[in-house]
Amino acid sequence: MLAEDMGYGDLTTEVLLPPDVTIAAKIVAKQGGILAGTVEAATAFEIMGARAESLKSEGDLITSGEIVMRVEGPARSILTAERTVLNLLMRMSGVATATREMVDRARKVKPNIIIAATRKVVPLFAYFDKRAVKLGGGDTHRFRLDDCVLIKDNHIKLVGGIAGALRRAKKAGFSKKIEIEVNKAKDAIEAAKAGADIIMFDNMAPDEIKHAVKLLDELRLRDKVLLEASGEINPENVAEYAASGVDIISSSYMTFRAPALDMSLEIDKDFKLGARGKRRKPR
Amino acid sequence: MLAEDMGYGDLTTEVLLPPDVTIAAKIVAKQGGILAGTVEAATAFEIMGARAESLKSEGDLITSGEIVMRVEGPARSILTAERTVLNLLMRMSGVATATREMVDRARKVKPNIIIAATRKVVPLFAYFDKRAVKLGGGDTHRFRLDDCVLIKDNHIKLVGGIAGALRRAKKAGFSKKIEIEVNKAKDAIEAAKAGADIIMFDNMAPDEIKHAVKLLDELRLRDKVLLEASGEINPENVAEYAASGVDIISSSYMTFRAPALDMSLEIDKDFKLGARGKRRKPR
Amino acid sequence: MLAEDMGYGDLTTEVLLPPDVTIAAKIVAKQGGILAGTVEAATAFEIMGARAESLKSEGDLITSGEIVMRVEGPARSILTAERTVLNLLMRMSGVATATREMVDRARKVKPNIIIAATRKVVPLFAYFDKRAVKLGGGDTHRFRLDDCVLIKDNHIKLVGGIAGALRRAKKAGFSKKIEIEVNKAKDAIEAAKAGADIIMFDNMAPDEIKHAVKLLDELRLRDKVLLEASGEINPENVAEYAASGVDIISSSYMTFRAPALDMSLEIDKDFKLGARGKRRKPR
Amino acid sequence: MLAEDMGYGDLTTEVLLPPDVTIAAKIVAKQGGILAGTVEAATAFEIMGARAESLKSEGDLITSGEIVMRVEGPARSILTAERTVLNLLMRMSGVATATREMVDRARKVKPNIIIAATRKVVPLFAYFDKRAVKLGGGDTHRFRLDDCVLIKDNHIKLVGGIAGALRRAKKAGFSKKIEIEVNKAKDAIEAAKAGADIIMFDNMAPDEIKHAVKLLDELRLRDKVLLEASGEINPENVAEYAASGVDIISSSYMTFRAPALDMSLEIDKDFKLGARGKRRKPR
Amino acid sequence: MLAEDMGYGDLTTEVLLPPDVTIAAKIVAKQGGILAGTVEAATAFEIMGARAESLKSEGDLITSGEIVMRVEGPARSILTAERTVLNLLMRMSGVATATREMVDRARKVKPNIIIAATRKVVPLFAYFDKRAVKLGGGDTHRFRLDDCVLIKDNHIKLVGGIAGALRRAKKAGFSKKIEIEVNKAKDAIEAAKAGADIIMFDNMAPDEIKHAVKLLDELRLRDKVLLEASGEINPENVAEYAASGVDIISSSYMTFRAPALDMSLEIDKDFKLGARGKRRKPR
Amino acid sequence: MLAEDMGYGDLTTEVLLPPDVTIAAKIVAKQGGILAGTVEAATAFEIMGARAESLKSEGDLITSGEIVMRVEGPARSILTAERTVLNLLMRMSGVATATREMVDRARKVKPNIIIAATRKVVPLFAYFDKRAVKLGGGDTHRFRLDDCVLIKDNHIKLVGGIAGALRRAKKAGFSKKIEIEVNKAKDAIEAAKAGADIIMFDNMAPDEIKHAVKLLDELRLRDKVLLEASGEINPENVAEYAASGVDIISSSYMTFRAPALDMSLEIDKDFKLGARGKRRKPR
Repeated sequence: MLAEDMGYGDLTTEVLLPPDVTIAAKIVAKQGGILAGTVEAATAFEIMGARAESLKSEGDLITSGEIVMRVEGPARSILTAERTVLNLLMRMSGVATATREMVDRARKVKPNIIIAATRKVVPLFAYFDKRAVKLGGGDTHRFRLDDCVLIKDNHIKLVGGIAGALRRAKKAGFSKKIEIEVNKAKDAIEAAKAGADIIMFDNMAPDEIKHAVKLLDELRLRDKVLLEASGEINPENVAEYAASGVDIISSSYMTFRAPALDMSLEIDKDFKLGARGKRRKPR
Repeated sequence: MLAEDMGYGDLTTEVLLPPDVTIAAKIVAKQGGILAGTVEAATAFEIMGARAESLKSEGDLITSGEIVMRVEGPARSILTAERTVLNLLMRMSGVATATREMVDRARKVKPNIIIAATRKVVPLFAYFDKRAVKLGGGDTHRFRLDDCVLIKDNHIKLVGGIAGALRRAKKAGFSKKIEIEVNKAKDAIEAAKAGADIIMFDNMAPDEIKHAVKLLDELRLRDKVLLEASGEINPENVAEYAASGVDIISSSYMTFRAPALDMSLEIDKDFKLGARGKRRKPR
Repeated sequence: MLAEDMGYGDLTTEVLLPPDVTIAAKIVAKQGGILAGTVEAATAFEIMGARAESLKSEGDLITSGEIVMRVEGPARSILTAERTVLNLLMRMSGVATATREMVDRARKVKPNIIIAATRKVVPLFAYFDKRAVKLGGGDTHRFRLDDCVLIKDNHIKLVGGIAGALRRAKKAGFSKKIEIEVNKAKDAIEAAKAGADIIMFDNMAPDEIKHAVKLLDELRLRDKVLLEASGEINPENVAEYAASGVDIISSSYMTFRAPALDMSLEIDKDFKLGARGKRRKPR
Repeated sequence: MLAEDMGYGDLTTEVLLPPDVTIAAKIVAKQGGILAGTVEAATAFEIMGARAESLKSEGDLITSGEIVMRVEGPARSILTAERTVLNLLMRMSGVATATREMVDRARKVKPNIIIAATRKVVPLFAYFDKRAVKLGGGDTHRFRLDDCVLIKDNHIKLVGGIAGALRRAKKAGFSKKIEIEVNKAKDAIEAAKAGADIIMFDNMAPDEIKHAVKLLDELRLRDKVLLEASGEINPENVAEYAASGVDIISSSYMTFRAPALDMSLEIDKDFKLGARGKRRKPR
Repeated sequence: MLAEDMGYGDLTTEVLLPPDVTIAAKIVAKQGGILAGTVEAATAFEIMGARAESLKSEGDLITSGEIVMRVEGPARSILTAERTVLNLLMRMSGVATATREMVDRARKVKPNIIIAATRKVVPLFAYFDKRAVKLGGGDTHRFRLDDCVLIKDNHIKLVGGIAGALRRAKKAGFSKKIEIEVNKAKDAIEAAKAGADIIMFDNMAPDEIKHAVKLLDELRLRDKVLLEASGEINPENVAEYAASGVDIISSSYMTFRAPALDMSLEIDKDFKLGARGKRRKPR
Repeated sequence: MLAEDMGYGDLTTEVLLPPDVTIAAKIVAKQGGILAGTVEAATAFEIMGARAESLKSEGDLITSGEIVMRVEGPARSILTAERTVLNLLMRMSGVATATREMVDRARKVKPNIIIAATRKVVPLFAYFDKRAVKLGGGDTHRFRLDDCVLIKDNHIKLVGGIAGALRRAKKAGFSKKIEIEVNKAKDAIEAAKAGADIIMFDNMAPDEIKHAVKLLDELRLRDKVLLEASGEINPENVAEYAASGVDIISSSYMTFRAPALDMSLEIDKDFKLGARGKRRKPR
């Protein structure tokens, strides 16, 4: 990330600042939310030769104006890394904050419900988006196409049916769970009977889901499966879905719709270059 | 990106679909906006062994329900690449759409104004975010720390003054422009006198900027510099900033606040696996 | 792999053979076994500019003397790629052959039993070792540390107990299975009660396992879990373990003990360089 | 190697163990043999943030039950690296052990004979396989296709003769040796006369080789070349080949047939998580 | 760079020197010139486990026989890194020396003239060549194709004219300068009128350039543009070009014609291996 | 190399030329010399989507004004790749030309003498520098530190003597040659007796070398070794060294002192953009 942003080097700091000027600076939240990305931020500063310290833990609630990290070292290093560090912190904290909002709203209705990410993440940044969801209190869900079987609409169409798809899917590996997407109660029942581990209600209204859960319950199939709701769920409607009886709500809201959380880097006040280009100690 | 998402391979398609099943599918917009990322999408499909065709050009306006790409090839290839392709298209089109919105609103007020990105992008995805801004009609601004000098608040503080900073900055290379951030009219005047190529009004209200532009004009400095407004500018207030007299408005709204544009991949209707696992020709 | 073996290039073929000599060659099995790695082999030849064709499918039984692939193209390309291609085929087919032997012996006793790999693979070659196990009829088991929770002896010691470990493990993600290693019947019962998805009997004798399965059955816990035997299982004793009542037998025999399967590349007989360094057509 | 095994991280240790638990552990040999790979093992632990110390040197004889390394550091780091470290040590020590066995058996017959590897190694792992052979007392032979000319059967067929091939080969570079493969005495004589540096008797019986060596001796060609035997040589027949008069015996037995050497990682007994998730000092 | 040169390792030092022999050595200039590359050299030694110290700063004038760096550490490390380090220092110092020569000769005639590199650099080594030019007192000019618009002969031909090309070029981005290549005075005037930031006189004689500058001056266009001379300029003719009135002289002389600056690594005299392979302290 | 030069893309061609403009162009030599690098050049054009054809073979003599390659394809592709392609061709042809000059001058005196490169090459570009030497008729010498033992001055000092160093060196591997550097006749004799494969006379005058060769001859050691002269040898003095009786002359002149060979890319005359941005066919 640093190399991507630096290219041949930071023209501005190189021409303005001598290499031996050291400063102290702080990263300040300009909005309240959930902090994420300080591990990455500290590593980026360290790669550049500066020392950073987190004042808050990842996953903590931070408020506007709060100092979240302090960093000390060569001014060139700190200012060159500034944007990369802030981009990491702001994007990841934005994702974590949105996750926490979803979790909080859903758990008011159902205390042990799980809010999960999807694979709708920014390409190349998937690891960081997933980690931010976890720090916000969410579940990462599938990391990739190889750690869980997820039979979607298109697969079922091609294979020709739910039971057949599930029968084949069991050959994928005994250590992997099998999830299947359905969009009506009847299909959920077929999936549960055919041995799915997880059933995802895709793009169904909360009431439809509630009805499906009830049917599964009556058929004594409810306890054999995990139930997940998905499809256009966001902070506005997450409570309704939480009330529908599912175990998990998955959403791309956190990674594809939520804004970054604003932060900035501020140099400690009393630092200024002295006559010979050295820092003066803060009084 | 494909490797990041595939790991050891797509468990689901491998276990459900024989390698010789071929399908045709389309990518459909589920929201209106500006299309971006089809070059990357087509490349991803091609790497997987499928052939894709764009029905719309990048930068085109698309409407909800419109087919934007068609793809044909092995079902395994298409379904394995689906999420990566959609993530690229949705993120990039989201950025392009937000850029176009900013451009349209600003140009109603000032037809030749430039809307520019900032370096607030998702790390590792910078190239794609910048390209999406360009496709939406925006300017990429600095790509990295090495293609333009941009003297910010923190640099000025450390160096001790605007004129001094600009004098030093001229040593960065004759082929690079020098931009400087100011937050009052007085400083803009000092910067223009000291030979800045671009002056950025950072976090100033439209009226303050208007006043500064007027002063520059009176001092016959206006035509010597490009003027840029920056700081919390979004579709709500972009027209006001456009009316302030600047040449450029830069904003992180497009890359850090705007949502992705929803799209989905749909298999052509009449395809279904025949008895022997081969596709049946659509009637 | 080709780059690793080539360095600055194949001194021998470059100095001996003009670039325009083309040949046809075949890869011949020198031992019977299960074929694996032809996809990788064909890709390696293609990268070098030759065209390869498999005469047998991966997973097929091959006999000593049988031709498994044919390749045509520049002699330099084929001879430069020869060792890399054979190393891939021989290592992967060796692993697949050992897997099939384990599967065959175990399934004589219990037809639907699963033979699984472990994570004991050659570093950097894990993908290929796992794929070879699958081609031999085995299960890949965990790919990495992130696609299944596996609580081992050392974890239990540190956490202080089976039930506690399983309780914590459930927070790892709803889409991941939880496996736990036990070495006595009592612990298996505790694990089953605490909700493990898979119980691995580690280094237990077949009779001990049989006893544990019986106890689980009596307590109506048997159907709630998958049972796996592990620890020094090889073709000699795999049948005994298969008879113990488990669902899965995992072993590092295939990847850490079994020999490679011998093969060689032979140039088609009637090719010989003519006077001007061109190939003569075979009669 | 660590990244290959970790993916998004070690689910099990992350969910079971707090980051501040530190442990001490040891790696114990479960079979006797020759130790190899401790440099790589220590590096892997160090990358993960733990400190490892070797109690034995690479190339040393180790016995079953012996402690070969000690490691201290965060429990998460040590348990996450465990499998990668053991895979390196077990594979490399297996290769080194097989090499030593070949060396010992051959040198009983001819004390200064060289046992050499071939290029039959696991792709991507070539450096480590070759290094293990060296640690076992063997010779690495060619590393790649660029550090020695080796004219094989197929090359001779294409070029049309031994003398011609050797004449051309001399243009490959004065700093490279030229080796040629023969399978009868007559050809060895032709090769020696034509100035080969090394002659490899490929797939010839010990008696045939003995006869060829005698002929070379009578023609006063013996001292001008190094002689190497190759082809299906293993611990059972290596002594016979050593008695045939060659200088070098090369074999893929060590890298393609020999089993890994069993080892395990054991946590020091008295460590257990205290009530607050901290380690208790061993008594 | 070290990996490129080491491959499987330094056979010579590994076989000759025990790992625990440490030495002290110095890098000595064998020609006078400008020093460049000590940052890279010190990093290379550090990667290998040795400690290096620069006695001179980059950009300093060094004389034949002068010690420029000292290094201490394992003999294996220092001798293995020796060639890579010297190659870096010799190439970069050669480029810096040639740059300084050009700068000195040009500035005798026009004290503030800029000597600039071109993009004629050794592929893969561009960063280092550009850095060496800067250390020699030159300007790096464009780093890549994305940090400045440079409209050349071929572009103008295809677009059909200077003014048209410049008009289109302004869409490339407000933060990038626009340079255009001309080869007659008339074209320079057209370019200056059309708003070029920089005009490059390509392959024009000093007198022709002088005439063009005069015309621009008379038309009051001179101060609106930077003027650059380019094309076969070298130490012999650089003063004439400096006298022609341009602001910048660019040349590939430094990176494509100038020789490397000779240096060597010498082990400190009194070090010699003691009886047991340990170093003896220098007296 | 293309990525290094392109960054975010070629601003100039993207803004000036529509993507569908195709052109034909030629690469023209502007100096006479030996052609090298056309394989790399053609690959670079191909990566960019253009088709290139070489009119001359690598290693051929080319004269000033001669067309060496033709290329056709999108104007954007060709102009974007232009500099990278020319840098490759110019650097490599410069090295090949200097090599041929050394070879020609030396072979007038001794027809079968070998001119060899050293490891003094531009870091990261070693493969291409070595290949250019070969194309110029030279020998690549050692590629890296692992394909030949070369005992230098510093090694001998540390080990304490020539015979001891050679004795140890024989353990480096039977497939590697052993070369040793000497600077007096006496040492050459000691080295030849101790079994060196190659003796390098380092920094000795031609007469001193002639004397050493004579002594070796008298002691019947001459035919047992290859003799190499090295140290400040260039076109001026290479004939004298060739007359000294050595088999090989190695020099860094070709890679560290010789200039690049000038070439340029010219668009075929009659191409010009038509009204609609399409190419017009040349008449």
